[in-house]
Amino acid sequence: MTTNPARLCAIVLMAVQGVFGSAIEASAEEPLKTDAQLLAAAQKQFRPLPKDAATADNPVTPERVSLGRKLFFDPRISDDGTVSCHRCHLASLYGCDGLAGSIGAHDFHAPRNAPTVLNSALQLAIHWRGELKTVEEQAQKALIGPAFANKDYATVVARLKAIPGYAEPFQKAFPDDSNPISEKNWGKAIGAYERTLVTPSRFDDYLVGKSDSLSPAERHGLQLFLSVGCADCHNGVGIGGGSFEKFGVVEEYWKATASKKNDQGRKDVTQQDSDQYVFKVAILRNVAMTAPYFHDGSVKNLPDAVKVMSRVQIGRVLSDDEATAIVAFLQALTGTLPRDFAESPTLPPGSYIDSP
Amino acid sequence: MTTNPARLCAIVLMAVQGVFGSAIEASAEEPLKTDAQLLAAAQKQFRPLPKDAATADNPVTPERVSLGRKLFFDPRISDDGTVSCHRCHLASLYGCDGLAGSIGAHDFHAPRNAPTVLNSALQLAIHWRGELKTVEEQAQKALIGPAFANKDYATVVARLKAIPGYAEPFQKAFPDDSNPISEKNWGKAIGAYERTLVTPSRFDDYLVGKSDSLSPAERHGLQLFLSVGCADCHNGVGIGGGSFEKFGVVEEYWKATASKKNDQGRKDVTQQDSDQYVFKVAILRNVAMTAPYFHDGSVKNLPDAVKVMSRVQIGRVLSDDEATAIVAFLQALTGTLPRDFAESPTLPPGSYIDSP
Repeated sequence: MTTNPARLCAIVLMAVQGVFGSAIEASAEEPLKTDAQLLAAAQKQFRPLPKDAATADNPVTPERVSLGRKLFFDPRISDDGTVSCHRCHLASLYGCDGLAGSIGAHDFHAPRNAPTVLNSALQLAIHWRGELKTVEEQAQKALIGPAFANKDYATVVARLKAIPGYAEPFQKAFPDDSNPISEKNWGKAIGAYERTLVTPSRFDDYLVGKSDSLSPAERHGLQLFLSVGCADCHNGVGIGGGSFEKFGVVEEYWKATASKKNDQGRKDVTQQDSDQYVFKVAILRNVAMTAPYFHDGSVKNLPDAVKVMSRVQIGRVLSDDEATAIVAFLQALTGTLPRDFAESPTLPPGSYIDSP
Repeated sequence: MTTNPARLCAIVLMAVQGVFGSAIEASAEEPLKTDAQLLAAAQKQFRPLPKDAATADNPVTPERVSLGRKLFFDPRISDDGTVSCHRCHLASLYGCDGLAGSIGAHDFHAPRNAPTVLNSALQLAIHWRGELKTVEEQAQKALIGPAFANKDYATVVARLKAIPGYAEPFQKAFPDDSNPISEKNWGKAIGAYERTLVTPSRFDDYLVGKSDSLSPAERHGLQLFLSVGCADCHNGVGIGGGSFEKFGVVEEYWKATASKKNDQGRKDVTQQDSDQYVFKVAILRNVAMTAPYFHDGSVKNLPDAVKVMSRVQIGRVLSDDEATAIVAFLQALTGTLPRDFAESPTLPPGSYIDSP
């Protein structure tokens, strides 16, 4: 578990406050900040989105992005021919699928909610338990995971080679590779594409100093978001996505949600007891568009999700008005969908191979 | 079976020619037409696309189209939450899914290939066997068909009402309806949207008199398409879609394809023996983008599909060069995707109901 010191202090403080019962609510209120004070406080916690999530390990070249975009939308590479990345990361639903848990090839039911692919390359790790380091690794391994259900990478490569129109874009995207159609280059191409999927919002305008980019109601929500303590974890460029935290600090989370089981979280990855119930802190950009919520999709509405988080992480019961105010701020995090995500690419036509 | 007289003559002629063996190939050749003659011959058989497939029964209002477009892309209305119209009619694959037979909710395998939704409202009927009269009827009935798998329309309406953002667009699309969220209006909205999905191509420019909109190779293919007899059935505004015909006039089709069974076709709909193996003539617009081919997706490549059709319908074995020439013409039928199809709409966020 990688709880940072500031967060630990906050948790200890909240636990101490818990001893004093009703003192909690009063102590969490702060005097209203001026617009300038609020902006300065926000700038300490958050950062505007960069234009992309480029990395030296996988240059975001136009050729890789163009190829990766095609591959992202192509279902013909999965075992039953119905699963593309876009099957569970729909542009219409801001990179999610609206399900508590995604459903893949052969009616496979995934154990966790599909997080949005938008801004995902900016996180410290991929998946709720952070078992994958990069979007490239995720894209490659998904090919032989249970959702795509391919039996091996050789099958994947054969499927790609059976579509004649992929030969040239793979060659152009990986010009120094004598055998460009490979599972590794699938991961790199999709990774390069996903690194372009950032969604600037009015909040980014705000962070660079334009106070009136947020309405008074949204600024009030931001103030609450800071004073209640949400930003202790949901901070940085993604308003989350930068750390792992225990879900259920004050109260067992599955008692506050409709969870059907108590997922062990990151403990299953690291085998460390301290990682029990630990998950990656969710990115809150576009959160108003990506119901249902949490690793198990157990909460359907954003106001309920905000209340559950405050209760089980901080021990504070938010009023309806407070939850509404915070939701108003969160709605201002809805960004502009990248054109190359909203618009499906035309895929190379042609034959495909049957399931083995 | 509604074979038209001209088609019957062609079939009789081909059968007679069959008696004379190798005389077939020579007799099917015609002297090369001049550009003006070819254009005139084409204008007799084909018509340019209208701007939409509007009907008095369901006005194509902007409000209905906008709502229908959202509904077309929304998977949350299906029983398992993974099936939208777009699941099997992908923009990336020109309104098809690349599968021999589509796969719906709960791993349901459809018995026939998903035809493209593009230009589909211009046909005489919907589905391969023509059992549905309009795109509106198809969209409505799909809700409780095996791909969406909803148990009844009440469930559908409950799902739609559980997404708050649908209340207003339904009301605006059906302002005179006191209960606008209904399965019937689902069908009308999607129908109105689908009536806008027409794909003008270079061939439409050609048909209005611009001969050089087709290359010499494409014009040569058109000439063969006419002289071989393809246009006896594949004609009109859709280059098909206007009649029902027996598949396998000269030879049983399943012997020429990879068909796994001999589908009875329209006979199962009408109970008439004369409708055995009868299917709707496929629209050939965008056919180069919509592999695999035929009602059972049993042929994967367009040149092979062209050869099979000529062989089993007309009794003529095309050379590779002839098939290539016809394919060159067919590729010129690939039109421009409507922007509102290529681009996914943003769906109203929010809760959904669980499967019953």
